[in-house]
Amino acid sequence: MNQLLSASAPALRPPLDLFAPIARDLEEVERVLARTLQGSRPGVGRLIDHLGHYRGKRLRPALLLLTAQACGRVTPAHHTLAAVVEMIHTATLVHDDVLDSAAVRRHFSTVNALWGNQTSILLGDYLFTHAFHLTSTLGDASACRLIGEATNRVCGGELHQICQRGNLELTEQEYFDIVDYKTAALTACCCQLGAAFSGKPADIVARLTAYGRGLGIAFQIADDLLDLVGDERTTGKSLGTDVEQQKLTLPLVHLLETAPPELATKVRQILGSPTNHKRDALRPLLVETGALDYAQRRAGESAARARAELACLPSSPCRAVLEDLTERVVNRRA
Amino acid sequence: MNQLLSASAPALRPPLDLFAPIARDLEEVERVLARTLQGSRPGVGRLIDHLGHYRGKRLRPALLLLTAQACGRVTPAHHTLAAVVEMIHTATLVHDDVLDSAAVRRHFSTVNALWGNQTSILLGDYLFTHAFHLTSTLGDASACRLIGEATNRVCGGELHQICQRGNLELTEQEYFDIVDYKTAALTACCCQLGAAFSGKPADIVARLTAYGRGLGIAFQIADDLLDLVGDERTTGKSLGTDVEQQKLTLPLVHLLETAPPELATKVRQILGSPTNHKRDALRPLLVETGALDYAQRRAGESAARARAELACLPSSPCRAVLEDLTERVVNRRA
Repeated sequence: MNQLLSASAPALRPPLDLFAPIARDLEEVERVLARTLQGSRPGVGRLIDHLGHYRGKRLRPALLLLTAQACGRVTPAHHTLAAVVEMIHTATLVHDDVLDSAAVRRHFSTVNALWGNQTSILLGDYLFTHAFHLTSTLGDASACRLIGEATNRVCGGELHQICQRGNLELTEQEYFDIVDYKTAALTACCCQLGAAFSGKPADIVARLTAYGRGLGIAFQIADDLLDLVGDERTTGKSLGTDVEQQKLTLPLVHLLETAPPELATKVRQILGSPTNHKRDALRPLLVETGALDYAQRRAGESAARARAELACLPSSPCRAVLEDLTERVVNRRA
Repeated sequence: MNQLLSASAPALRPPLDLFAPIARDLEEVERVLARTLQGSRPGVGRLIDHLGHYRGKRLRPALLLLTAQACGRVTPAHHTLAAVVEMIHTATLVHDDVLDSAAVRRHFSTVNALWGNQTSILLGDYLFTHAFHLTSTLGDASACRLIGEATNRVCGGELHQICQRGNLELTEQEYFDIVDYKTAALTACCCQLGAAFSGKPADIVARLTAYGRGLGIAFQIADDLLDLVGDERTTGKSLGTDVEQQKLTLPLVHLLETAPPELATKVRQILGSPTNHKRDALRPLLVETGALDYAQRRAGESAARARAELACLPSSPCRAVLEDLTERVVNRRA
């Protein structure tokens, strides 16, 4: 989780400051979200209210709105689509917490911890379908296609990842393939929608889509690093779940691909052991071999490529924030 | 599950016979499904293949196609939409099996039994989003709206039901409200899409939507009856899950609303007991009090109302099948 996403984690500077150029648009997105989800049945309403605790700094809606503004204008369609991407992201968080048996999210109890897995599964489904229904209210089939395609990629990536769980032979290419789907597809879609609905030509839309994709990949690598070496008090969520579930991320993939046979064997033994302290046992090895630095470097490269795509836009406060984000996502402590 | 839906359960007559008027269209729907889901990653493909065992008699696609044909014509859009509703239905089955911790579905092991809950949750999400993406390929925003709206109702109904779990004061109105959403919304949507994409005027579309809704309600009441008094060998799925999870269905709602205090107290004690034989303990009480007959009668009334809506269509083989279905759904053994 990014400091931009974490309600309680310390931020280098107040996020409201960072998103000042689109502060009013973000408020409008909150109104769309409230309007869309209100009127749920009493029992359901209580769950929706709890999701308020999951509220981060709205990175995805912000990406969509910043791109739109940097491309010239924010329209009501952008506000609706920003609410849609946040709803989809929240749906994936609710299901992720079930998958990870996570008890805490952003310093609050998860829905599954409070109401059980069954409720969490249905709440996630409810949010997914709400997002699609909300998209359709725009009466624009292309918006439905982009949202449908991106969301399907996100779920396909997550499903592929879980099918690869326990595969200690996972290649770097396979890792990037999973990340490209499960995380970058949605951030790319945010920027694509922001640019497309501002009426930008296809070549500019393509470059901003590439920006969102590169940012998402950098974001996920940083997220995976935090799962290995982050501080639960700062991130406000359970960490070490990837290794506990034998989900290989970039530092471990790199370590296993480059380590001498003896060390690789030791790493596989730790990953295969029944203990719950894999994270602590692996950390020193990841540090000594430079595997963490390698992953950090790859995140930086992806962020730098994303930043370069922004050259297609004129200078503006919103473009400056999009540039700023490429640095923030790779320098995360939370 | 209906005999029309159950691959292995005995049918009063061969379903292929029943659906003969749209047999070729159903084959085309299979091709659309295969084309859409093929190309999933290897690990994912294995899961998709397993879903072939879940394959029933395609009641929902059949409803959509029969309505379309009864309204005049089946178009390629109908084939796509029929694949969409089947995909959505399958997604709900995959998640339902997790919610019910069901081990068997249509005489085969469930995805959760074979690959665990995590995989099942993601596979369901993958199918939901695939369905929305497939809908969007039609380039018709109204199709996206109808599918988004119906699916959101289905999930909202399921979520409402689980929030009401353990509520032994559930009223008949609340029961019908849940059924209207979790089951009837999708069958209504099938008939609505079938009629609308045949170019029928709004009043005819509305009557066929009402047909699908009434059929769905009758179908669900019959399904709830089977959960209480059905035979697991015939239905090919785990039964008694509703009472085990304290989900009140029509017979029990009626029994609790009409029984004398002593009997009502006894029923509540059974429902609240920790034993796993609630179904056996409740059955005689449901029979003696006529609660089962009452539910059966209400199912018949809903089916009859649905049948009456078909009067707006000229006689045809497909209209005859739609009429036939109103009788079959209430006279189910599987």
